Amino acid sequence: MDPRAAELLGRPIIGQLGFHGLDGYPHVLPVWFEYRDDELLIASPPAAYKGRAMAKDGRAALSVSTVERPYHIVSVVGDATVERLSEAERIEFVTAIAARYLGPEGGRQYVQAWIRGGHPGDGELIRLRPLKINFYLS
Amino acid sequence: MDPRAAELLGRPIIGQLGFHGLDGYPHVLPVWFEYRDDELLIASPPAAYKGRAMAKDGRAALSVSTVERPYHIVSVVGDATVERLSEAERIEFVTAIAARYLGPEGGRQYVQAWIRGGHPGDGELIRLRPLKINFYLS
Repeated sequence: MDPRAAELLGRPIIGQLGFHGLDGYPHVLPVWFEYRDDELLIASPPAAYKGRAMAKDGRAALSVSTVERPYHIVSVVGDATVERLSEAERIEFVTAIAARYLGPEGGRQYVQAWIRGGHPGDGELIRLRPLKINFYLS
Repeated sequence: MDPRAAELLGRPIIGQLGFHGLDGYPHVLPVWFEYRDDELLIASPPAAYKGRAMAKDGRAALSVSTVERPYHIVSVVGDATVERLSEAERIEFVTAIAARYLGPEGGRQYVQAWIRGGHPGDGELIRLRPLKINFYLS
């Protein structure tokens, strides 16, 4: 893999997740993600649309791009699975990813609003295993 | 349509184009686009991957999101066609969209580098007609 792709996937830029929708159309949604051990990890509330669609068809894509020219772009295609995330694991994952995207203070405020008195319930983890990772400048 | 969706689609934010790839996987690519007369218009070099894929299967999606919380997000699903764009139409389209995304001076410099002595050749226009437009905050 191009080292610039790994570097870009490591930055807290919103990922654009593509998947086959339940209506047969491609869908694209912005997501927070973590790139860890060569996988892209995305948390989701239980039974959300993207989780239901990807449980049915795990073929997926994720794109990341900078906002200034020359645009640095990573485009990933791969296979995703949707796993149960226990409440404890979910809290741990969301706490880490919120801090990553929003900084320590912003992350803390986010989790406080999200956690609903400490019991957000179980969630889901979308685990995307890349088959192809392309890096390019545009 | 939610007026906030129309407002967001009118801003020069990179669009994230989703389509069914020739490999059967969803693909996501960042694109410049123009929202005009209820359609999303995207220019493409001739026979580029996205144009070939969308000519075969026009089902498509486009997502736009702001980079700061609360994220304002528009998610579009629709049907796309791929049309020939004559050199003159292509120059006009690219000149306008480059100025829209990069400003007058940045757009001018972009077109000067892109136009290759005045003859970039014919191109393609991807015309996406929305079936569903969702606006949400996240």
